[in-house]
Amino acid sequence: MKHTITFVPDNITVTVDDNTNLFKAVKAAGLYVLSSCGGKGNCGKCKVVVREGTVEPGKSRSYLSAEEIERGYVLACHSKVKSDLAVEIPQESRMQAKHKIATGARTDELIRHMKDAGGCLESRISRTYLDINPPTIDDNIADFERVKRSLDGAGLHAANLHMNYMMLSKLPRVLREANWKVTASVFSVGEVLEILDIFPGDATETRYGAAVDIGTTTVVVYLVDMMDGHIVGTASTYNSQVKCGDDVITRIVYATERNGLKELQDLAVGNVNTMLADLTEKNKVAPNMIDYIVVAGNTTMTHLFYGIDPQHIREEPYIPAATFFPLIRGKSVGLAIDPQAIIYSMPNVASYVGGDISAGVLVSQIHKQDQVSLFIDIGTNGEIVLGNKDWLVTAACSAGPAFEGSGIKFGMRAMEGAIEEVEIDPRTYEVNYRVIGDVKPIGICGSGMIDILAEMYLNNVIDQKGKIREEIGSKRIRRGESGLEYVIAWRVESAVNKEIVITEVDLDNLIRAKAAIYAGFATLLSHMGMTFAQVEHMYIAGGFGRYIDVERAITIGMLPDLPVDRFQFLGNTSIMGAYYGLLCDRLRHEAEEIAKKMTYIELSVSRSFMDEYMSALFLPHTDLGAFPTVRAEMEKRNRVV
Amino acid sequence: MKHTITFVPDNITVTVDDNTNLFKAVKAAGLYVLSSCGGKGNCGKCKVVVREGTVEPGKSRSYLSAEEIERGYVLACHSKVKSDLAVEIPQESRMQAKHKIATGARTDELIRHMKDAGGCLESRISRTYLDINPPTIDDNIADFERVKRSLDGAGLHAANLHMNYMMLSKLPRVLREANWKVTASVFSVGEVLEILDIFPGDATETRYGAAVDIGTTTVVVYLVDMMDGHIVGTASTYNSQVKCGDDVITRIVYATERNGLKELQDLAVGNVNTMLADLTEKNKVAPNMIDYIVVAGNTTMTHLFYGIDPQHIREEPYIPAATFFPLIRGKSVGLAIDPQAIIYSMPNVASYVGGDISAGVLVSQIHKQDQVSLFIDIGTNGEIVLGNKDWLVTAACSAGPAFEGSGIKFGMRAMEGAIEEVEIDPRTYEVNYRVIGDVKPIGICGSGMIDILAEMYLNNVIDQKGKIREEIGSKRIRRGESGLEYVIAWRVESAVNKEIVITEVDLDNLIRAKAAIYAGFATLLSHMGMTFAQVEHMYIAGGFGRYIDVERAITIGMLPDLPVDRFQFLGNTSIMGAYYGLLCDRLRHEAEEIAKKMTYIELSVSRSFMDEYMSALFLPHTDLGAFPTVRAEMEKRNRVV
Repeated sequence: MKHTITFVPDNITVTVDDNTNLFKAVKAAGLYVLSSCGGKGNCGKCKVVVREGTVEPGKSRSYLSAEEIERGYVLACHSKVKSDLAVEIPQESRMQAKHKIATGARTDELIRHMKDAGGCLESRISRTYLDINPPTIDDNIADFERVKRSLDGAGLHAANLHMNYMMLSKLPRVLREANWKVTASVFSVGEVLEILDIFPGDATETRYGAAVDIGTTTVVVYLVDMMDGHIVGTASTYNSQVKCGDDVITRIVYATERNGLKELQDLAVGNVNTMLADLTEKNKVAPNMIDYIVVAGNTTMTHLFYGIDPQHIREEPYIPAATFFPLIRGKSVGLAIDPQAIIYSMPNVASYVGGDISAGVLVSQIHKQDQVSLFIDIGTNGEIVLGNKDWLVTAACSAGPAFEGSGIKFGMRAMEGAIEEVEIDPRTYEVNYRVIGDVKPIGICGSGMIDILAEMYLNNVIDQKGKIREEIGSKRIRRGESGLEYVIAWRVESAVNKEIVITEVDLDNLIRAKAAIYAGFATLLSHMGMTFAQVEHMYIAGGFGRYIDVERAITIGMLPDLPVDRFQFLGNTSIMGAYYGLLCDRLRHEAEEIAKKMTYIELSVSRSFMDEYMSALFLPHTDLGAFPTVRAEMEKRNRVV
Repeated sequence: MKHTITFVPDNITVTVDDNTNLFKAVKAAGLYVLSSCGGKGNCGKCKVVVREGTVEPGKSRSYLSAEEIERGYVLACHSKVKSDLAVEIPQESRMQAKHKIATGARTDELIRHMKDAGGCLESRISRTYLDINPPTIDDNIADFERVKRSLDGAGLHAANLHMNYMMLSKLPRVLREANWKVTASVFSVGEVLEILDIFPGDATETRYGAAVDIGTTTVVVYLVDMMDGHIVGTASTYNSQVKCGDDVITRIVYATERNGLKELQDLAVGNVNTMLADLTEKNKVAPNMIDYIVVAGNTTMTHLFYGIDPQHIREEPYIPAATFFPLIRGKSVGLAIDPQAIIYSMPNVASYVGGDISAGVLVSQIHKQDQVSLFIDIGTNGEIVLGNKDWLVTAACSAGPAFEGSGIKFGMRAMEGAIEEVEIDPRTYEVNYRVIGDVKPIGICGSGMIDILAEMYLNNVIDQKGKIREEIGSKRIRRGESGLEYVIAWRVESAVNKEIVITEVDLDNLIRAKAAIYAGFATLLSHMGMTFAQVEHMYIAGGFGRYIDVERAITIGMLPDLPVDRFQFLGNTSIMGAYYGLLCDRLRHEAEEIAKKMTYIELSVSRSFMDEYMSALFLPHTDLGAFPTVRAEMEKRNRVV
């Protein structure tokens, strides 16, 4: 028996078999619904409203409030289709699917940064215009050898000239159609030259590349004019893989146990293709003029982008297929650019410290300084590097994506409708908040969560362990389905027709996440026999990092209690480092040296990390002496500490 | 309207639309029918017999005898299907489709020849057994880097180690399934090492390669044990491309004007795959253990095997896509061996002197001798090389495939049923002949044609121009559809229920073919300011060459009148040279030096060649003084010369 499902408000219809899983039906319709667990049934995010028809809701109810059940909510992944349906995917279950396109406003600044880092415009791929003598009966050498001779004449020594099958196949046609005036795109590896492609006419001035940051949550593309380094345009979008799981572990499970490797690859490549298509169309760039792409991503994202099985990243002893990936061609991964284009991925260090981090260190320049710096990239994962010009140690602190909303009842990413700043009145416990886009809130993003944690702690709403002090008697404190919770926005204020709350479970998850980050810092320092006081610079990278209030982050003990002037926000160093590597082969090589130099500490088996982590499961920390400014603030607020 | 055609005696049925071309229907049924023109309608070879049903025979009749028409013969390519049919493909229109398999009897001799030529067992691909330390939490480098480290430990410096996408994709699985005991197949190009493939366990002793001769008419494969050079087995078959045309020009037309490039490639690759499948199965060799293939073929065959457009080979100024082809992977051409296998083609010299000739010179060793030699490869084409250790000149004499049966009324290849030796009684003009397989004859092969021409000339049946002397009054001389003809076998003797004749048109074609070969020799000599007398060695290569009676070939003026002890038959030097190149990288390199050293003379625009050709359109030659032994024989037979 077949059933027809109409999804509103999109008005998209799909026909499925009886008993089809509703989560799969949503995907079959080409629509997205939020899911942290990839449809495994345990994150409770894929809420949809059944407007008409019947589903078998399975265990949906245990994830829903009585009111939600009343209003027809089910979890898509638990529900089976039993009749024709009209299903609404409500705003809070949707991802912002449309990507953003921007122009290259940051070009000058970025090029200056790159040059400060010792970079120059020097790529491994070059273009050479060839005005080739057409063959005659007296000069009848073959096309390939004729091009070789012409390259020789242009000063490109071509004793070891290669050309692959695809290029050779089209060579005779291209040469003749272009009337023997062509531009060769030549790639050098040591003494071997390879003709990547040949274009008609003079295409020496129309070389483009792309820097790509494949984040677990966000994918960013810079389309770059390789002649001058100018950023033609930038675009960013959510990584469509999110529908298969929020974090790298869930994605690896999806790729391996659920046979989804190809799907995940297609999703990430599709994101890049869509953005490149928009950028090239908008800027009148021929997509086949893009012949070099540098990708930075964590190790798992790199595997998935290339379609390489990431299974062993997840299993002890946590082994990637490669850290320094061999070069791969555009066509191998299905990128809609020059099929011969070279794809390079910034060097990974280990299973949980990837090319985004070697890119980040390259941008931070900590590997050139005498002084010791800490670098952290806070994204869906949290990776830390400690070091200076002589040594570098690194670790991934497995903070998990709590600050991006995963595992937090009203957690969401920093987009319109997210509460991003929160203040609690010390006397009335009333809440002031600011919402991105100045609209009614639908949830809370990372910076909002940090504020909530800090404010609740400073104002005595929660204790050091994050437990809500019911005894203070605020009407905002109530007992919900998962224990005590605190109301941040009342139903009338919210866009989702219900109270937006933070629960004790949420608080616990946030404390675990911040503890993991701090314990990561502490473990690396202790590994080197150092203390926080010796850290002269603290660099914070990552999309999330741009929104953090340092003092609040210190208050909750996520960041160490250092003078605020030691902190510096770098922004998305992954895309910046990819851009450096794209334009300058010397800096690309430098990133490889950085990756080789980094000593990776596997925290998941570190006794020292476990101790530090346990000590950090308090606000701000078991050892309040390590947080003098927080202590001072608490004393100011007249609390006994 | 659909019609069903049953082909007998195969009893294969195919359903086609009304009006379908019968030639296409034969191909659709997966059957072959002889055709020199590839179905263009002008060779008259694709004769079939309509046993039941109706066809519209088109212009068939102009190619058929009255008796054939009576018996239901039509040309498949001219006929349109008008009803259900029963069609017989008679024996004379069939190709011998089944290939021959032999064991490696010639191994010892060939290895000795190769070693005499300075060869050794030294390939660019090597196998190394790696007993890799499995990863642990303390030694958790990635799989790719782990293999690299292990290769380093085995003495293979891997600073520039590459691995392609396909290999990387399967790396984690292969390593773990093999419990970290694997064999790496490593390919070296200068300082770059590439891991072509990784096999479980110790596969160092099971490396196989294949030498392949892609002839215009015949494809030969040697399956070779790369450990000791032993030929595991050999196989040969007709090149299935023959159904698209007999010679390289027809094939190029088929590839370009008739859009048949992919089909031609698939046919040749299919031939190799079929033979390799049989050879590997019979000899219990795993096909993926074949990681290196060296192909020798003429320039057009090389293009077609690789699927590269050969169009410009045919058009002045006759330019191939490449002469030194870049390396190509097994998977790129669809060979059913290790997909990563390296395919190397013996270096071509020019559009009409290919890798089969550089292979042939390598085998002949004329490039190392002080004395001057002539080398000719007589196959479907005739290529000539003149030279010694200091210089080499080469040309293709465009003899055409007359000696293989093309353009000859009863011409056929040297297979069962072919008349291969002929004697004519000087007094009675009666004919004695020998048939391959000692069966009733169905046609005449190349050596038979040379005999016929020589015997008819020596016995005064034809004049110096190849015109039949009707006045001698033999009952074997008669006037047929295309003028005078001479009966070689009477109807009662033949297997095709009709007289086997040689016509004046046939004789003219044969004289043109032999004249082209001789003129080729003469032109190269005159180019070097030399005479035949200075040629110390005359090497004859090619499948056809094995059957030539040198004295008869001198009689008709195809070969120069040199002492018989200067002639030496080398056999199929194309496959032998491919075998040398496969086993010994030094000899492969030597073949490249040979190809570079050869000066190519384009005879088709040579005034000198045209003059020589016109002079050679006589038996044996305008200048009988150049053929003293023929003159002596004629004098012996009391003819005025």
